Amino acid sequence: MKNEPIYNLLNTINYPDDLRRLDVEQLPEVCSELRQDIIKELCCNPGHFAASLGTVELTVALHYVYNTPYDRIVWDVGHQAYGHKILTGRREAFSTNRKFGGIRPFPSPEESEYDTFTCGHASNSISAALGMAVAAARKGETQRHVVAIIGDGSMSGGLAFEGLNNASTTPNNLLIILNDNDMAIDRSVGGMKQYLFNLTTSNRYNQLRFKLSRMLFKLGILNEERRKALIRFGNSLKSIAAQQQNIFEGMNIRYFGPIDGHDVKNLARVLHDIKDLQGPKILHLHTIKGKGFAPAEEHATEWHAPGKFDPVTGERFIANTEGMPPLFQEVFGHTLVELAEANPKIVGVTPAMPSGCSMNILMEKMPERAFDVGIAEGHAVTFSGGMAKDGMLPFCNIYSSFMQRAYDNMIHDVAIQNLPVILCLDRAGLVGEDGPTHHGAFDMAYLRPIPNLTISSPMDEHELRRLMYTAQLPDKGPFVIRYPRGRGVVVDWKCPLEEIPVGKGRKLKDGDDLAVITIGPIGNTAARAISRAESEPGKSIAHYDLRFLKPLDEELLHEIGRKHQRILTIEDGIVKGGMGSAILEFMADNEYKPTVKRIGIPNIFVEHGSVAELYHLCGMDEEGILTKIKEFIN
Amino acid sequence: MKNEPIYNLLNTINYPDDLRRLDVEQLPEVCSELRQDIIKELCCNPGHFAASLGTVELTVALHYVYNTPYDRIVWDVGHQAYGHKILTGRREAFSTNRKFGGIRPFPSPEESEYDTFTCGHASNSISAALGMAVAAARKGETQRHVVAIIGDGSMSGGLAFEGLNNASTTPNNLLIILNDNDMAIDRSVGGMKQYLFNLTTSNRYNQLRFKLSRMLFKLGILNEERRKALIRFGNSLKSIAAQQQNIFEGMNIRYFGPIDGHDVKNLARVLHDIKDLQGPKILHLHTIKGKGFAPAEEHATEWHAPGKFDPVTGERFIANTEGMPPLFQEVFGHTLVELAEANPKIVGVTPAMPSGCSMNILMEKMPERAFDVGIAEGHAVTFSGGMAKDGMLPFCNIYSSFMQRAYDNMIHDVAIQNLPVILCLDRAGLVGEDGPTHHGAFDMAYLRPIPNLTISSPMDEHELRRLMYTAQLPDKGPFVIRYPRGRGVVVDWKCPLEEIPVGKGRKLKDGDDLAVITIGPIGNTAARAISRAESEPGKSIAHYDLRFLKPLDEELLHEIGRKHQRILTIEDGIVKGGMGSAILEFMADNEYKPTVKRIGIPNIFVEHGSVAELYHLCGMDEEGILTKIKEFIN
Repeated sequence: MKNEPIYNLLNTINYPDDLRRLDVEQLPEVCSELRQDIIKELCCNPGHFAASLGTVELTVALHYVYNTPYDRIVWDVGHQAYGHKILTGRREAFSTNRKFGGIRPFPSPEESEYDTFTCGHASNSISAALGMAVAAARKGETQRHVVAIIGDGSMSGGLAFEGLNNASTTPNNLLIILNDNDMAIDRSVGGMKQYLFNLTTSNRYNQLRFKLSRMLFKLGILNEERRKALIRFGNSLKSIAAQQQNIFEGMNIRYFGPIDGHDVKNLARVLHDIKDLQGPKILHLHTIKGKGFAPAEEHATEWHAPGKFDPVTGERFIANTEGMPPLFQEVFGHTLVELAEANPKIVGVTPAMPSGCSMNILMEKMPERAFDVGIAEGHAVTFSGGMAKDGMLPFCNIYSSFMQRAYDNMIHDVAIQNLPVILCLDRAGLVGEDGPTHHGAFDMAYLRPIPNLTISSPMDEHELRRLMYTAQLPDKGPFVIRYPRGRGVVVDWKCPLEEIPVGKGRKLKDGDDLAVITIGPIGNTAARAISRAESEPGKSIAHYDLRFLKPLDEELLHEIGRKHQRILTIEDGIVKGGMGSAILEFMADNEYKPTVKRIGIPNIFVEHGSVAELYHLCGMDEEGILTKIKEFIN
Repeated sequence: MKNEPIYNLLNTINYPDDLRRLDVEQLPEVCSELRQDIIKELCCNPGHFAASLGTVELTVALHYVYNTPYDRIVWDVGHQAYGHKILTGRREAFSTNRKFGGIRPFPSPEESEYDTFTCGHASNSISAALGMAVAAARKGETQRHVVAIIGDGSMSGGLAFEGLNNASTTPNNLLIILNDNDMAIDRSVGGMKQYLFNLTTSNRYNQLRFKLSRMLFKLGILNEERRKALIRFGNSLKSIAAQQQNIFEGMNIRYFGPIDGHDVKNLARVLHDIKDLQGPKILHLHTIKGKGFAPAEEHATEWHAPGKFDPVTGERFIANTEGMPPLFQEVFGHTLVELAEANPKIVGVTPAMPSGCSMNILMEKMPERAFDVGIAEGHAVTFSGGMAKDGMLPFCNIYSSFMQRAYDNMIHDVAIQNLPVILCLDRAGLVGEDGPTHHGAFDMAYLRPIPNLTISSPMDEHELRRLMYTAQLPDKGPFVIRYPRGRGVVVDWKCPLEEIPVGKGRKLKDGDDLAVITIGPIGNTAARAISRAESEPGKSIAHYDLRFLKPLDEELLHEIGRKHQRILTIEDGIVKGGMGSAILEFMADNEYKPTVKRIGIPNIFVEHGSVAELYHLCGMDEEGILTKIKEFIN
């Protein structure tokens, strides 16, 4: 990166067809240029970085060997797919990546025919790809290849196992590429990681067998009829050549590897050799997250999504945040430690997001009381339920949109038993650049119907601390606290820890012309809009912070119902079924008949962009709320 | 069973303490008596049958060897736990099993301290038990043992894998008992089943190693420090003694077995030998579902929950249903075949419920177009999404309460891409004797907020057929059809297949004093109540069948909003966030101000009992609705 990079080959590639015209000997140069291009773009237009560097060679090899888009490449989570975007007609547009109106953060079939399936949440690729393979077979598309690429981090998700379990018995020719870099966003955890490591440390047998199968294939000896016999033969061979255990072979999925995922020529050769083998196959690659950019190789977690940086020195441009309010995440992390120090029952659980949610603070201080369970949201909640059943107080922190994966666990393993699991939903509301797969839009609507739950959202950092304190007091049952990504509003956040009575909201200000009811930090935006609306002479607006979506503060709502003819509800969640609906239900049940208007996330999948842009889009920013208030009271 | 059985030993056992006073030589007799007792009870008080017969020896051995309830026995699904109930203080009460006010259908911590965790939905035991093991360690309860019992059917669920993946690395002394009978309710499917079969067919090595470890244990040589060394040694031994692949050992979970799960003395001995081994362990048992009752052994699926039967001849008392309306399930099954014959894009997907939902009809007629994916609801939906993405029209049939496990899959893998997956939710509404874990209470509330979905519910069998026909027409996108367990109302159900315009409800009758809006078959109950209410002179009540929860029939609702001051909504789903809330939202958004009352499942976990009893309890039967109507219009 000393000089401006020259893209002799990359400049000739607009689509994979162009790539496929090159000689295999040119692929290393393509990879080098592609890697430089990713670094050059990402240093000034931040996004997910280290994962895409790790898949440069794989991406080039896949599009070189497979006939995309006719062949289906199914990525698992889109962090790693920047090279794929650049090679599939989006090099020009890549400077708009993740920006409002620009290309999407993750592969999206709406954007490109090369993007075969939504891939924002981990672990879905095998199931989706198996569906495509079965569809191809049913339609007689016998020439179509389907490839799923899944990281070892995603392999800890139950859905990946369910997919594997079915891929092994449903007739199909799927290739599953296991991109093993020992990382999710943080380091991978769990037995499967250990298992893959074991596979790697004794691969003598696999290499031997792979050579054998290539030979048989070239001789035309290998066909579907003989595949199972060969696996049996391989198993016998195994007992001679090595003592390797292989779950994949045990499930009748042919296993190849592990091989170096950064040797693009060999990778292309291997893919070419195995692409027409019948039956399901798994190819185990070793890659390095952040490959080719030394700081990212060394500190892959920090470089997962590093923000802006200097492409030469690797210095990250970290904004000066002195004097700014803290992140909700920081307040969560430090407060959890504070509570855990005082209450030995408290433990922490995170599904693979220790740095993202700041549970790493507890992990450092009390490693024996913090559990990173890997990408496994369902297990995170049920495991928390098991601990709660025997006397612990688990703070289980899950991003709101990922919590969709643990819905039954919350109902079946927590709420039915009324267990004191404290579910902290991070990234609630619109999350910004990560887009529709990551918005925490639905949690209030889907949790509200569940009996026994307490559901709360703090308006600021002090409230977050008080709610966390309240949740761990005796006999509170299952307790949900939702809060957004990003900064709060109170610089001096270390308030005393005090109990908030469960189900009690608060009147922030009185008023006559309208009652505004908010929940969560959007209350701060609403307060500003209210203040501006009241600058018109003769208008006064009441503002209530509901705090608890459930149980509702019936006393407060009776007061509002009796006094107000106009109610405006404001929430950073989907309007269908959310807080506004809860207010409508209360008013109907008690035969109040105010005019109620609701502001919230509309009933669409909101696109990506900055949080400010998206809140504006949804009429949930200060201007949007002000406009709505004015319409309502004039 | 020729004579009245004599319970010499069982009569002395009220609690496991009594069992533990017996000599190990007496255990076979206890098992025999327990088995007879189960048969005697179940023949006249129907329930889950075959599974509990298969676990008689395991149940006796567990309570004999472990210090329950101090030690934690965590069952996975409660079908198999009748013996457990009888041995833990509930033999007398067992005649009330599954009855309204009687003992619960599945183990429930509210009912007994021997029931450690909710176990209605499969695959949660390992995660919950791991939580308990960790809690015990944290509290210094070093003497407490925790045992999870999981069937091979449940092992196909991703949650079980997530639990296993974490059990292998979190420090714990958990014992996982794999109860392998090659069955879920129908036969097990998938690679794991194949894998377990492979394990079984070459167990020479395991037996050898087991003997070795017992010897080491008895000599006091085995301790935690040496455990890992021993596993390494075992792996070397393996290469000499056999060519067995073992995923569990690869994940550092010690594997024992397989052993005969019906040899109670040996089972007790093995449990005794391994109970104090440090670290996570798995014991693989072979059992026979239905063991000891020949007809059930032969036809385990039919005898999963056989209804009443003759305990001597095995003749099942199947009620004469001639002249009765069909089951919704039958209509679904036959209609699916009819549609599939006409439309080659149609395929069927079921997560382990082919007989329960009647997809077995398609499986028999077109085996290549029907997919039983095992207990794996998440995969079922994402796999359907993959097929739909490449041109198929999957009818994915999932029980409503199990669909809670595929919530994110529906959002992330189907709705965001607007894919034409036709999700048929069987067992919607209150299901009766299976109780709170199985009620289909939440689906309307949790699906309604998801953009792009069409959500419908048929009032009768004809409507079900028309909705199924409509859903598979071009460009309908994701389409949900929910219907209950049990019989419809139309004997002659084979109506022509006609399209229903999406989002169009219908006015069933006109009226002036009240508008009743219903969705689904509860509309029939409402119609009868309306008819009775109108017998009072001068009262007339309008009745609308909404049909579509989403999109709403805005034309119809405007008509209602303009005309009616009183609206009663009736749905067989939770009232919080359901259809009634959708009506409230519409009326508020359009500034109609009728008085709206809502009937539906209240915000509690409704207990078990007959469907009729539960609908009565919730005020959702004819009487309850009539009372509500009268209160409203008088």
